[in-house]
Amino acid sequence: MTQNIIEILLVEDNPRDVEMTLRALKKRNLANKVQVVTDGAEALDFIFAKGKYSSRNLADGPKVILLDLKLPKISGLEVLKAIKSNETTKIIPVVVLTSSQEEKDLVESYKFGVNSYIIKPVDFDKFIESVGELGLYWLLINKPPV
Amino acid sequence: MTQNIIEILLVEDNPRDVEMTLRALKKRNLANKVQVVTDGAEALDFIFAKGKYSSRNLADGPKVILLDLKLPKISGLEVLKAIKSNETTKIIPVVVLTSSQEEKDLVESYKFGVNSYIIKPVDFDKFIESVGELGLYWLLINKPPV
Repeated sequence: MTQNIIEILLVEDNPRDVEMTLRALKKRNLANKVQVVTDGAEALDFIFAKGKYSSRNLADGPKVILLDLKLPKISGLEVLKAIKSNETTKIIPVVVLTSSQEEKDLVESYKFGVNSYIIKPVDFDKFIESVGELGLYWLLINKPPV
Repeated sequence: MTQNIIEILLVEDNPRDVEMTLRALKKRNLANKVQVVTDGAEALDFIFAKGKYSSRNLADGPKVILLDLKLPKISGLEVLKAIKSNETTKIIPVVVLTSSQEEKDLVESYKFGVNSYIIKPVDFDKFIESVGELGLYWLLINKPPV
């Protein structure tokens, strides 16, 4: 059922960052098919169609996963590792969207196979601009694998 | 020496596509530090600092590689595979920029670990727009690993 297709999976526990991200996507008319999950365990359930997402069809995307690193239950790096070490899910584009300026997080993310790494701008307008560009790029410019 | 740093490696054998890509980047003021190579063998020499590029410092990037798939000598998929199976170079963002609409090229690229896959728009204006967005995203929004 096409109406159930999720284009963006947003994995973010900070309510303010969720709100700002959705606002940035809305501004570019890209917020219609976003699923928000707030911890790493639920992210994995969604991605691997388990638990309360077991009726989801794996072929339905998402086109991109926006992944925070500091998450409750299971960390963003662990979620990334799980996605990129599975033959079926490794092809899904994952963009880390984080406040972390740590070199270690950056390099490890790329080593695990992250598709792109974005540091959340502290400034509100820059946040809206960057996340808008990100949405535009991954939904309209990039060709997703599924 | 900072003046030698290459931000974008463009691997493209079609002179018209090279010209259009540079024009699109210029329009966004992103064409200052582009290295163009026209076959897969030279691309690998540049990336792994071999042959005529042996004096290049591997730590100098590039921030992103734009990779055509149909290339003389060594194919784009082989170049991608070589980059992504080497611990040092696998962290460099690679964007496939191709005319190929083939599902096989798309899925194999993602399986080999491509960061993004873009089908060259046939329309001139759309090509300029898409490549401009691509340059903006990978040089100004994405945080590169080095």
